[in-house]
Amino acid sequence: MAANKIIHQVFFWLQQPTSVEDRDALIAGLRRLAVIDGVRSLEVGVPASTEQRDVVDSSFAVSETMIFDSLEDQAAYQDHPLHHQFIDECGHLWSKVLVYDVVTQ
Amino acid sequence: MAANKIIHQVFFWLQQPTSVEDRDALIAGLRRLAVIDGVRSLEVGVPASTEQRDVVDSSFAVSETMIFDSLEDQAAYQDHPLHHQFIDECGHLWSKVLVYDVVTQ
Repeated sequence: MAANKIIHQVFFWLQQPTSVEDRDALIAGLRRLAVIDGVRSLEVGVPASTEQRDVVDSSFAVSETMIFDSLEDQAAYQDHPLHHQFIDECGHLWSKVLVYDVVTQ
Repeated sequence: MAANKIIHQVFFWLQQPTSVEDRDALIAGLRRLAVIDGVRSLEVGVPASTEQRDVVDSSFAVSETMIFDSLEDQAAYQDHPLHHQFIDECGHLWSKVLVYDVVTQ
């Protein structure tokens, strides 16, 4: 069985939900996080146009999906200067952020 | 640039949140979905013991992260007999399900 991985799943809602410029600035900011030590993979996305069912939340504007090898790597990412820089530069863009941290089984 | 992928991210809350047996039955049921055509990858997980910050929702019991190549493959998965069988066999285990469908940029 493969080693357990950490999936760090984050959803962002924008201060200005209709601003394509703000959305793209956030996407660009998130992409710059890929170079941080310990980030095994990064996917940045937007809501997919799947069927709108009651259980589907498509109200977010942007998402990031990061994979880490360990809890330690995820904690180090949180404290990394480039992560703090991202929050300083892009934090004004979002009104809400929601994080789900998963350990694979 | 890589082709856009669909990330189908699902979180489950259990009817009996403290039942390890129910949690494990749901995990086992989810794993059986990996054989469905079009499911490029499947990760099944539980909340990671990352730092408990206000923005982190660790109230779910089980998660699945699926990757599809296209919206069509995701739609076909929804209608697949093995997916319906999973809902029939495991649907009584959860009290709430929340889905986020992402298209990578």
